[in-house]
Amino acid sequence: MALALGIDVGGTKILAAAVDDAGEVVVEERVESPKDGGSLFDAIGDAVALVVARLGGRAAEVHGAGAGLPGLIDLEGVLHDAPNLPAAANSAAGAELRRRVEAVLGRRMRVVVENDATAAAAGELAFGAARSVANAVVVTLGTGIGGGLVGNGRLLRGERGFAGEIGHMVVELDGPRCACGGQGCWEQFASGTGLARLGREAALGGASPLLAEALAARGEVRGEDVVDAARRGDGAALDVVAAFARYLAIGLSNLAEIFDPGRLILGGGLVRAADVLFATVPERFAEHRRGAGEAKVDIVVAELGERAGVAGAAALALGLVT
Amino acid sequence: MALALGIDVGGTKILAAAVDDAGEVVVEERVESPKDGGSLFDAIGDAVALVVARLGGRAAEVHGAGAGLPGLIDLEGVLHDAPNLPAAANSAAGAELRRRVEAVLGRRMRVVVENDATAAAAGELAFGAARSVANAVVVTLGTGIGGGLVGNGRLLRGERGFAGEIGHMVVELDGPRCACGGQGCWEQFASGTGLARLGREAALGGASPLLAEALAARGEVRGEDVVDAARRGDGAALDVVAAFARYLAIGLSNLAEIFDPGRLILGGGLVRAADVLFATVPERFAEHRRGAGEAKVDIVVAELGERAGVAGAAALALGLVT
Repeated sequence: MALALGIDVGGTKILAAAVDDAGEVVVEERVESPKDGGSLFDAIGDAVALVVARLGGRAAEVHGAGAGLPGLIDLEGVLHDAPNLPAAANSAAGAELRRRVEAVLGRRMRVVVENDATAAAAGELAFGAARSVANAVVVTLGTGIGGGLVGNGRLLRGERGFAGEIGHMVVELDGPRCACGGQGCWEQFASGTGLARLGREAALGGASPLLAEALAARGEVRGEDVVDAARRGDGAALDVVAAFARYLAIGLSNLAEIFDPGRLILGGGLVRAADVLFATVPERFAEHRRGAGEAKVDIVVAELGERAGVAGAAALALGLVT
Repeated sequence: MALALGIDVGGTKILAAAVDDAGEVVVEERVESPKDGGSLFDAIGDAVALVVARLGGRAAEVHGAGAGLPGLIDLEGVLHDAPNLPAAANSAAGAELRRRVEAVLGRRMRVVVENDATAAAAGELAFGAARSVANAVVVTLGTGIGGGLVGNGRLLRGERGFAGEIGHMVVELDGPRCACGGQGCWEQFASGTGLARLGREAALGGASPLLAEALAARGEVRGEDVVDAARRGDGAALDVVAAFARYLAIGLSNLAEIFDPGRLILGGGLVRAADVLFATVPERFAEHRRGAGEAKVDIVVAELGERAGVAGAAALALGLVT
């Protein structure tokens, strides 16, 4: 059975795995992402070495390696603009990864690097929720919002590899300033950051004892605080969640109008609170969308969870999706 | 030389042409779009008959026929939701077109129907401004905003054929109500309708004698009135044009973030006032977009003008683009 190494690089940890051509994770290892100054690619090399060591004789079955990185990756494998990995910005990510993988395995093979959200979409396309459709958007809801696009059964990378920056779609012309320099970007409303911002406003407004307590205790309100307070029936937190769901639904509606996807697939860390955060999203979405024919877009949760990235990177390395 | 019939159906007129496989229009004819109750497809049949009559012996070279229609066309060729052609809604457009074309030409051939903005994108992809790129968005700016998408060198139609409804991307959460039922859609700001709305507000605000005059004379302000007043140096009209350009730029920025297109191609009726309406758009766009690498998106005017639709429909019928 053909195996590939899949690596998913986050701001805090690196997940590396050996994945087979049915999408099964055979072995996986986690290492910490290096702090500023540490070499990201050395850490990736360490993770790869751990996985290969555990593979033992099956290392001979490894046909390729792929990595999903949180930043803009051009079609030549150069990493641009990686806000959570400043030390790795402008690095030749493809060449760096190749050097580490080939040093560990002692032979040449197919090596690919990809934006992390696109890698997650590759995983869902090869093995998960996008398997049965030709057009899909994988929306990764975490600190920000990332996007992986599938059109005509293939990944859409754009002209330079930078497609899928759906979190920077402006949904409110004069809305809050975004780290990207723009204003009113979707991720200012419908990400973990957006949820925290809305929660903070509610805490300062004085209507929520629970959120005010969280703010007083830590000097900030986190998305988790809002979810916890909503679970405990806090009225103001429930209002925040309702506003969040509307913002999420409207951005999803934009993507539906633009792409006519067979599925809108929600992934990322916020999925852990799907019961609270996503419950009313299909309803808000249907409310906003016109026409009966158009309302038939499935909104589903990603099937591969936190392994979408490694599975997708491996699928790309194996050429299972393009 | 292979020819195809290309038909572009608008709310007021139907343009039919014979187009060769280099995109040259050999013969063209215009007929009026039928008013409510008239048969759209009979009118198309009349236009086709006129073109074929003028082709004479070259009618033997016709290998197919295609039509671009202003509405949602599903992948089986059924026309849904055609606001400007209510009498034709829910018709089997592909079958209807086939019947007329084959009646005129007396033989079977390839017949395709497509959304009008997607047909225009097919034209630009086969013969025009999208020829040299693999990823593009053709933005048709008229009464509303239509979109034709190119990804990986192919048209993106979406799962049911309804992709490209970029005019209904929400850019202002609580913005003005749109005919689609939503609020704050891009076409409420950056279309002919949007320009007229902004012009009317300026006229009512009292700052523009020229726009107030237009409003008094006809009970409405049209986009053309704003363009004329701006050309004559009217300060309030120039402010309206500046606001319009910002709205247009922000929607284009959204499309750039989402698709990373090699080109953003502007077409449609508003192109006639490109000197006034588009002059500052690249500047507003660059202002809003972050990162040097990302700013390099060409914003260009469509090359085929009002013939993009017929050329694209013919290109689809000839299989030159898919």
